Amino acid sequence: MSGSLQPLRRGRRSGGEDSRELILGTARRLFAEHGFDGTSLRQVAREAQVDPAMVHHFFKGKDELFALSVELPADPEQVLAGVETLDPGERAEAIIRAVLRLWEGPAQHGLVAFVRGTIGSTAKTALLREMVARTILSRVMAGVPGPAGEVRMRGDLVASQMVGLMLVRYVVRLDPLASATQDEVVRMVAPNVQRYLTGELDNP
Amino acid sequence: MSGSLQPLRRGRRSGGEDSRELILGTARRLFAEHGFDGTSLRQVAREAQVDPAMVHHFFKGKDELFALSVELPADPEQVLAGVETLDPGERAEAIIRAVLRLWEGPAQHGLVAFVRGTIGSTAKTALLREMVARTILSRVMAGVPGPAGEVRMRGDLVASQMVGLMLVRYVVRLDPLASATQDEVVRMVAPNVQRYLTGELDNP
Repeated sequence: MSGSLQPLRRGRRSGGEDSRELILGTARRLFAEHGFDGTSLRQVAREAQVDPAMVHHFFKGKDELFALSVELPADPEQVLAGVETLDPGERAEAIIRAVLRLWEGPAQHGLVAFVRGTIGSTAKTALLREMVARTILSRVMAGVPGPAGEVRMRGDLVASQMVGLMLVRYVVRLDPLASATQDEVVRMVAPNVQRYLTGELDNP
Repeated sequence: MSGSLQPLRRGRRSGGEDSRELILGTARRLFAEHGFDGTSLRQVAREAQVDPAMVHHFFKGKDELFALSVELPADPEQVLAGVETLDPGERAEAIIRAVLRLWEGPAQHGLVAFVRGTIGSTAKTALLREMVARTILSRVMAGVPGPAGEVRMRGDLVASQMVGLMLVRYVVRLDPLASATQDEVVRMVAPNVQRYLTGELDNP
């Protein structure tokens, strides 16, 4: 699967490049300020002072515009392909393997730069929050049983472990965790992720 | 305990301010390049082109110089006071409570700025790695039984969960985890941290 992890395309059009970048920059600001749901393509066009048709000319829709605004160096849909169809009770290992494959594939440098840039900036952190909740957790938590609020909490807990794992292993590079094999990481971390996904949360 | 969480003092001396800042800047660079153990006060003085006595005049020793280089907005010794004396088999809750108290006390804004600045910069990330391993994990993992390599791995795993928790709750602010009470967070997260500290790691 790691062969399919291509960075999202960024179009290069000599003519429309300026308008495209203007739209992207405007979208980035609006998504950061108002979130995904609070931002419409119409608004983006208005704030960028371009015709709405031009937004549709450059971007397939709000999802693509959002993904490009965040400048995520990988496509969550590809990375997490198959995860949402697995039994939630046995999904932790697949989530961890998908993340490890991604970070140990060609996107690694882009991801480190993405994390550094995103966490280093307040506006980008807001984008990241939107992206994690909408694009990643919606897939990771699909079909997990329980009341919606509880499932969202479980998703945040899974995120807390996975974000920490990526940071400590690939960005801060604490050893020996940074040099453990993928299988070792899965054995050590999967039971914890699985507890957040479907385990008993309230009774230690 | 949160009343005792004072930011580390930064001296302001009109006369020696320049020399002090010069020494700090040099130390920051050397610690990032060569780590704590690979950096001596003598080297710092040489590279800063000041007399070694001046380094000792401004800083109590290498530990203080390092702590000030990292610009950590809280003192790990105070934050984790008492944790290392607890039975490792029942230490997770105390670790989590110490971290939550810290981040929900007066140091919060400084900590967010610290995390943003540190993760945003390659050199600062190297400093962070040194600091986490030396100053924090040494305390958190004190007395945890097992071979040294395994205990270090357990420490990195604890760090992965705690770093992720801080980022998701306080920096990225994913809800509902960002608005859960401290008691809720402890109930949800402590069993996972405790497994990393002293639980079975290899058999899920």
